[in-house]
Amino acid sequence: MPDLTTTVPDWLRAVPLVDHHCHGVADVTLDRPTFEDLITESDAPAPTGTTFFDTQLGFAIRRHCAPVLDLPAFATPEDYLARRAELGPAEVNQRLLRATGIGDYVVETGHRSDEILDPAGMGASGAAGYAEVVRLERTAEIVAEELAVAGAPCDFPTAFRARLDDLLDPRLTGAVGVKSIAAYRGGFDIDPSRPTDDEVTRAVAAWLAAAPEGQPLRLTDPVLIRFGWWEAVDRAVPIQLHVGYGDPDVDLHRCNPLLLTDLLRLARGSGASFMLLHCYPFHREAGYLAHVFEHVYCDVGLAVTYTGAQSAQVIAESLELTPFHKALFSSDAFGAAELFHLGAGLFRTGLARALATWGEGWPEDEQLRVAQLVGSENARRVYRLDEVATTTFGRAGA
Amino acid sequence: MPDLTTTVPDWLRAVPLVDHHCHGVADVTLDRPTFEDLITESDAPAPTGTTFFDTQLGFAIRRHCAPVLDLPAFATPEDYLARRAELGPAEVNQRLLRATGIGDYVVETGHRSDEILDPAGMGASGAAGYAEVVRLERTAEIVAEELAVAGAPCDFPTAFRARLDDLLDPRLTGAVGVKSIAAYRGGFDIDPSRPTDDEVTRAVAAWLAAAPEGQPLRLTDPVLIRFGWWEAVDRAVPIQLHVGYGDPDVDLHRCNPLLLTDLLRLARGSGASFMLLHCYPFHREAGYLAHVFEHVYCDVGLAVTYTGAQSAQVIAESLELTPFHKALFSSDAFGAAELFHLGAGLFRTGLARALATWGEGWPEDEQLRVAQLVGSENARRVYRLDEVATTTFGRAGA
Amino acid sequence: MPDLTTTVPDWLRAVPLVDHHCHGVADVTLDRPTFEDLITESDAPAPTGTTFFDTQLGFAIRRHCAPVLDLPAFATPEDYLARRAELGPAEVNQRLLRATGIGDYVVETGHRSDEILDPAGMGASGAAGYAEVVRLERTAEIVAEELAVAGAPCDFPTAFRARLDDLLDPRLTGAVGVKSIAAYRGGFDIDPSRPTDDEVTRAVAAWLAAAPEGQPLRLTDPVLIRFGWWEAVDRAVPIQLHVGYGDPDVDLHRCNPLLLTDLLRLARGSGASFMLLHCYPFHREAGYLAHVFEHVYCDVGLAVTYTGAQSAQVIAESLELTPFHKALFSSDAFGAAELFHLGAGLFRTGLARALATWGEGWPEDEQLRVAQLVGSENARRVYRLDEVATTTFGRAGA
Repeated sequence: MPDLTTTVPDWLRAVPLVDHHCHGVADVTLDRPTFEDLITESDAPAPTGTTFFDTQLGFAIRRHCAPVLDLPAFATPEDYLARRAELGPAEVNQRLLRATGIGDYVVETGHRSDEILDPAGMGASGAAGYAEVVRLERTAEIVAEELAVAGAPCDFPTAFRARLDDLLDPRLTGAVGVKSIAAYRGGFDIDPSRPTDDEVTRAVAAWLAAAPEGQPLRLTDPVLIRFGWWEAVDRAVPIQLHVGYGDPDVDLHRCNPLLLTDLLRLARGSGASFMLLHCYPFHREAGYLAHVFEHVYCDVGLAVTYTGAQSAQVIAESLELTPFHKALFSSDAFGAAELFHLGAGLFRTGLARALATWGEGWPEDEQLRVAQLVGSENARRVYRLDEVATTTFGRAGA
Repeated sequence: MPDLTTTVPDWLRAVPLVDHHCHGVADVTLDRPTFEDLITESDAPAPTGTTFFDTQLGFAIRRHCAPVLDLPAFATPEDYLARRAELGPAEVNQRLLRATGIGDYVVETGHRSDEILDPAGMGASGAAGYAEVVRLERTAEIVAEELAVAGAPCDFPTAFRARLDDLLDPRLTGAVGVKSIAAYRGGFDIDPSRPTDDEVTRAVAAWLAAAPEGQPLRLTDPVLIRFGWWEAVDRAVPIQLHVGYGDPDVDLHRCNPLLLTDLLRLARGSGASFMLLHCYPFHREAGYLAHVFEHVYCDVGLAVTYTGAQSAQVIAESLELTPFHKALFSSDAFGAAELFHLGAGLFRTGLARALATWGEGWPEDEQLRVAQLVGSENARRVYRLDEVATTTFGRAGA
Repeated sequence: MPDLTTTVPDWLRAVPLVDHHCHGVADVTLDRPTFEDLITESDAPAPTGTTFFDTQLGFAIRRHCAPVLDLPAFATPEDYLARRAELGPAEVNQRLLRATGIGDYVVETGHRSDEILDPAGMGASGAAGYAEVVRLERTAEIVAEELAVAGAPCDFPTAFRARLDDLLDPRLTGAVGVKSIAAYRGGFDIDPSRPTDDEVTRAVAAWLAAAPEGQPLRLTDPVLIRFGWWEAVDRAVPIQLHVGYGDPDVDLHRCNPLLLTDLLRLARGSGASFMLLHCYPFHREAGYLAHVFEHVYCDVGLAVTYTGAQSAQVIAESLELTPFHKALFSSDAFGAAELFHLGAGLFRTGLARALATWGEGWPEDEQLRVAQLVGSENARRVYRLDEVATTTFGRAGA
């Protein structure tokens, strides 16, 4: 990261990061259409005559990742992808990941997990610790599919609870938290109250009855989404929520985090924490929630990578109302190791710029403390990473 | 304010401020829990192992207020509060207030007024002029309580009108405006039209019938909130509206100022002015309203203090569409004199940075004129401060 | 533009602009009330004792336009308007327009077109090419008026289609796109689906039956607004949509571009493009839409002019998620040539500042490419300007 960090002081460059929300990288050679698909949130190719390399993210890749692959900055997309193929995915991933300073990956495994490295694979590739977060909606889909095959959908509440307990059991999967993608399944403008088991059972029956034959189940019923939330609340774990910016499946105005206000009120005192992810362009609203609710945290993960050279402003805005003990770093990277590399690099650059702007008169040790809180300590505290057994969370190969 | 103002030119430092919306300071020694409660909008303590001193506001206090109390910048919270106790509240308040350059305090007295200095007390402590703004909802609660005791709730419209007239009468309370906290009592997405006296009388009866025995009345009925608005409109006074950011009682998405659009349209030509307070994170939306409606004004009071070192951006954004003759300074400070000190200091710093960024080629006298309009002249004009009798608005001790 | 461009590098100053959304300038001498009305989006005069010259736009006019009229920067409003009258409208317009570097004006002709220059007049005054965009709602009003006179409102769908075909026919009007002001006629929170001809015919009948005698028709029925959208979609043309900030007719919270999400989904694959205009304060939301939907483009036209010295931040924000091949320049100027002058000048300055902030390490040719895409090439590609016959789009006098 030669230039991305020119304005990053040494003490900030040395802060180890916990990436509290990410996915795995692909371990195959990526052709141009696949790579372009990984560097956009669109589900369509760029219009004829254009390319997703002509974006903040595309420019950041050419600017900052090309040198990691021994190319000059701003190598052409063609040269970049040719060099990427030449080095091979294992080498590319290791180079890009190990230059991030990410010490621990908290990997969410509920999205196209067969195409990417699993948490242990990420630890090995990045020479880092790792832990897992499980997706509530995916878990519900798996449980419902199993019950449908067994002809016992009425057992859903019990079966879901048992599965969630297993996933969170340190002797089994040992997940350190859960994730909800309610934002992609209808949004947050729903009654947030806890449903009864009867309501849940009826909703599962209706879901299975209406499901198209031979296709994977897709959970969208708000009753079942709320059921997942409340089961997680009962277990007092960190609950990651996708908020704001994402792909065109999202109705963005329905995932303004302020629409979660009533849920957050209902869940006060439960011991559960709510981790608002990305939040762009509602990161100021998310900061308000993190400010006034003791169990709310937030990041601007995905937004940092995608806004590239402009991310410093987004990072500064995300630290207006959010207490320094409530903000976290994440990359939300999926598939391309470049997204980890830039997520971490841009985070350090943006935080360095913010501190330089704000910090006239802030002693270096206070600036460092802010960087440590946001970069890793808040995540270590909330996910209790230091209590997790080394079998599920530890240095790769340990 | 040694460092907060290093980039503030002398002519800007000399501009006297009118704090057009604030509360009083506490005149007692504040222990750590009480002080931490005064420097957050949360209603809960910071999570175990964290402190509200680790926020933009907390850092700003240690950075800028500690030297006013003869401590080094970034004294620890413990040392800061010990020194605060040692000096005593009267000395602390005087030091912090008198260094603000606030020449006049327009004090809203409807919130926990028994715990803080009254307007005259603020004038004395700050060596400044003062005036009063009264809260519509609190006034309605007091009138309703009195009528309930007297067994005459059907007289509410008449009694409220008489009370409001008294409060605005220069020979009596002499309030220079009113305040509505509709944002805390259900939000702005209500029918804004004027209710009939019959509707009001029925609403009061229902309110009193449903009120829990032995507890203070709490106004939430939109009929009565609208009644208050329209009585104020009829009196052609400045109407302050809490907008946006506040404590967790607020449903923030229900107090977007754009939801006031129909009310503002209905009240055109009445002579009343609408003063949108704070507005964060909707300050650009508020700026639009101040731009297109001749009777709308706005500030970013509370947001400046709470966003601390990042407030310069918020101030700049608040002056995008808002005409320079429509923007105002306020601190919205309550309880802790630090909030006045930082409100004023950060306002000057942020405005200085904005003018330095914008003003390449703006003559100094034009920059000064903008600062004078926003800092005091707009408030003096809208609240007619120069017409107020010295008994209610004048230099302390005059 | 001596000072506005001091920080604009020569290569950026030389980029020709396509103003993809503007109106004509007035060709008469403007008195002070008329001029003040043209430099605000308010429909009311500034309050007594204030002036719209005390705004970002007013300051920008005095700062940057006064020298073009041989006055010192920051000439008084009185001197400015006197000199403007002395030079006469033709000279003023030519001076201000020809200093913009706008090579082509795409003029929307549906608003008070009798008061301003037509597209050919703009080409002549600006020494530039020109093209036309027609307004869907105005077209519908004209067709309905004609049918009402003829007593044949049931023929509306057929007549509207024929009229739209004529307007888009290169041998006739040759419009290169259409514009919708749905934002001003109820907002975007409507069912976006295509209405049937029967629904349209019934809506026209109801509209005509309810229309006040002797007044021009005003289209507000969402059925007919949607009909216009879908007829444009069928013709696969660029569809400009007013989004966000505008005059007090707008319910701003009803024209958040996210409310268009379902329409955008329905129109995928049609060949039509959606050009989101202005978008302030929702330009980040618009950028999300331009990012994820292949047929969505956006600008911050009107917002740049009105935020004046603060526009650099708005421009930078508009290029966070918007791909560089999706962002466009426009002025949205109407009536006063100053709005063109400042629209272009502030766009160059703001883009220069953004590139300087972002571009440490971006080669100059890559920065130039971004400026060319946003400044003109995206517009040329989407509106197919190079395919338009010189009779409708060509150098004035060619």
